[in-house]
Amino acid sequence: MRMVDVGDKPKTERIAIATGLVRMSAQARNAIRSNSVSKGNVIEAARLAGIMATKRTPDLIPLCHPIAISAVEMHVATVKAGVEIRATVKTVDRTGVEMEALTAVSAAALTVYDMLKSTDRGMVIEAVQLEAKQGGRSGEWKRKRT
Amino acid sequence: MRMVDVGDKPKTERIAIATGLVRMSAQARNAIRSNSVSKGNVIEAARLAGIMATKRTPDLIPLCHPIAISAVEMHVATVKAGVEIRATVKTVDRTGVEMEALTAVSAAALTVYDMLKSTDRGMVIEAVQLEAKQGGRSGEWKRKRT
Amino acid sequence: MRMVDVGDKPKTERIAIATGLVRMSAQARNAIRSNSVSKGNVIEAARLAGIMATKRTPDLIPLCHPIAISAVEMHVATVKAGVEIRATVKTVDRTGVEMEALTAVSAAALTVYDMLKSTDRGMVIEAVQLEAKQGGRSGEWKRKRT
Amino acid sequence: MRMVDVGDKPKTERIAIATGLVRMSAQARNAIRSNSVSKGNVIEAARLAGIMATKRTPDLIPLCHPIAISAVEMHVATVKAGVEIRATVKTVDRTGVEMEALTAVSAAALTVYDMLKSTDRGMVIEAVQLEAKQGGRSGEWKRKRT
Amino acid sequence: MRMVDVGDKPKTERIAIATGLVRMSAQARNAIRSNSVSKGNVIEAARLAGIMATKRTPDLIPLCHPIAISAVEMHVATVKAGVEIRATVKTVDRTGVEMEALTAVSAAALTVYDMLKSTDRGMVIEAVQLEAKQGGRSGEWKRKRT
Amino acid sequence: MRMVDVGDKPKTERIAIATGLVRMSAQARNAIRSNSVSKGNVIEAARLAGIMATKRTPDLIPLCHPIAISAVEMHVATVKAGVEIRATVKTVDRTGVEMEALTAVSAAALTVYDMLKSTDRGMVIEAVQLEAKQGGRSGEWKRKRT
Repeated sequence: MRMVDVGDKPKTERIAIATGLVRMSAQARNAIRSNSVSKGNVIEAARLAGIMATKRTPDLIPLCHPIAISAVEMHVATVKAGVEIRATVKTVDRTGVEMEALTAVSAAALTVYDMLKSTDRGMVIEAVQLEAKQGGRSGEWKRKRT
Repeated sequence: MRMVDVGDKPKTERIAIATGLVRMSAQARNAIRSNSVSKGNVIEAARLAGIMATKRTPDLIPLCHPIAISAVEMHVATVKAGVEIRATVKTVDRTGVEMEALTAVSAAALTVYDMLKSTDRGMVIEAVQLEAKQGGRSGEWKRKRT
Repeated sequence: MRMVDVGDKPKTERIAIATGLVRMSAQARNAIRSNSVSKGNVIEAARLAGIMATKRTPDLIPLCHPIAISAVEMHVATVKAGVEIRATVKTVDRTGVEMEALTAVSAAALTVYDMLKSTDRGMVIEAVQLEAKQGGRSGEWKRKRT
Repeated sequence: MRMVDVGDKPKTERIAIATGLVRMSAQARNAIRSNSVSKGNVIEAARLAGIMATKRTPDLIPLCHPIAISAVEMHVATVKAGVEIRATVKTVDRTGVEMEALTAVSAAALTVYDMLKSTDRGMVIEAVQLEAKQGGRSGEWKRKRT
Repeated sequence: MRMVDVGDKPKTERIAIATGLVRMSAQARNAIRSNSVSKGNVIEAARLAGIMATKRTPDLIPLCHPIAISAVEMHVATVKAGVEIRATVKTVDRTGVEMEALTAVSAAALTVYDMLKSTDRGMVIEAVQLEAKQGGRSGEWKRKRT
Repeated sequence: MRMVDVGDKPKTERIAIATGLVRMSAQARNAIRSNSVSKGNVIEAARLAGIMATKRTPDLIPLCHPIAISAVEMHVATVKAGVEIRATVKTVDRTGVEMEALTAVSAAALTVYDMLKSTDRGMVIEAVQLEAKQGGRSGEWKRKRT
């Protein structure tokens, strides 16, 4: 078990975009849209939880390096199937921010679940995945559409 | 925005079981099975990350109460589609442990992703969901099989 | 230096209410009211930061006991002088939640400052104080109005 | 809600100085001066809490960037009105340390409150404010004396 | 890998006492005694670090339960061989505080090392061990003197 | 009390190696070797705890700077006397990683203790010490063999 050595990699700009979906009942989604969730504003809470989670990534993922995050942008919106989440994370560092972006999506999704669980305990967090990354030795990567 | 009042709920035994799947290429799954992942033992790391994440749940999910977790059991195993994760969390407290179980599954899944991402960046975290809960005012709940 | 022994105190319901004010320019306050702050929704961010900070209190204040917070309610609103903050925290535990309530107010105030500092670096956090507490050996306490 | 992009800012030396006051009864202040507070040395505890809090700033303030703090100096002293706190924080990074300095003052002030609250529950944390900053795009700033 | 189930254990008073020694050169020890260490008061910093570390124990030790610590007392003093540390931790909970006491000693010892390392890099942390415990199913235990 | 200024030091590669020993009964050591410890795989848990602890070092040690760790390697193995631990930590930063390496060894040792304490409460953590460091103003240092 080891945290791999990134000390000889150059510091370059790196971007990662991850997405996910919280599938839910129409009733749960409507509660968000009408802002009638008793715990508060679901969209704002999920965004904030996502941003804050990027900073906890090395505490949660054992072999992640601590990283100097330079920007986080969270998109959280209701769609037909429930709530769609997209996190964009940037850094200028020796290693990428894929894990930070995926962790942000996961934390935002869990926050959505938490705020609505009394309405719909059957919600499912789906398709948490990397969409694209730029920068670093492995360069650009984009998810293939099927 | 508020953390709802649970002060007048009785302390009772509560259990939650959550599951999830990291869908991956055969190559990535085989790397786990043959224990040839350069970062180390994926299954053990994912288990440990899941257990430790249950203790960070109130730090990650804004409106979660801090809770006296009394037991955590992680099942992480390779299956045909990739890696299957199951977390069982128990408490004797005023509120349930659904969020702790779902957070454990998410952290374990993210750890699997992190350790294998140089092999397969396209992995997808799927079907993170509550399977069952017991205890508390709302009593027993089981996911319906479709 | 010691964390005082509370082991022989009974677990009883305890409530603490704390308040504070972020004094700011009319321009800064208007930016909040018109929701035109580039970093996002100041009121929601401050509420959430306050709630989350109650859970970090024993990490920040060296001699605070870890405590089973049962409820947090944050009131954050613009007033003539700037932003007024009120935190109400409850527990059923061996020690009070005054520090949790004061920490929530401080974190919410700092969050307001952070989101508006490019508009008004001269903002002042004022009058962070306990308003009332109930429960525990010392019983009820209320701030005297002068 | 977003953590603004600082990736294209240069890494430069930045300094921030913040101050605050814990207003208290003469009895409470004298307890500090005579080092007769049962919880321990108030001045040393407040200094240490301030220093440690600079490192928790991004965990507490949702939209703060994680930052490479290079120095922290805490001044904590009794004055006529109570306890005066001054934090000086330095970094060589892409964004400033105003929030780190203000968070240090707040944590030190809360620690003073915690250690003396059994003597004087009415203490007030006052005038938590930035005194000066240097470095960065916005350059030097100094609080105007009125 | 699992966090063992303690949910059916009764909540009882439990105490643990742990000790340790930081062996150092006479020069380093004298720097503490004359309070001439440039980083500050070593004894107070070590005490505080020990107390605060008890609260981080479940974050550091993967399979530790979160626990309601009710008291911590730190003894840190210079002796002929260096600095002697003793931590006494109490709880009223379902599991013991041995790990909290040992973690407090370790964090205090590391803090001593950190503050003096520019004077004596060869210091050794020795004999970190449980001295006694009371309470719980296994009852009283005392280290045998040899 | 202050976190010393490292802002004018250059960022250079720095390495620190620390070691320690958990002395234990033959019975406890054999339980590890036969992988029959009920809590799980001791060696893997200790390695992971050590790696994760390097990232918590500035949270535990009051005057430590936050640091951009670039690599961690943990060696944990049974020997005649018990379990031997060695941590190698690297960074490219303005200050060294001695504290990170010593904290990793301590956390790994505490984890070993935790997992085996029901078998042997008398285990002792011994000889936690720096073995070597490279880089930085003070250059290379090696422990003298006696």
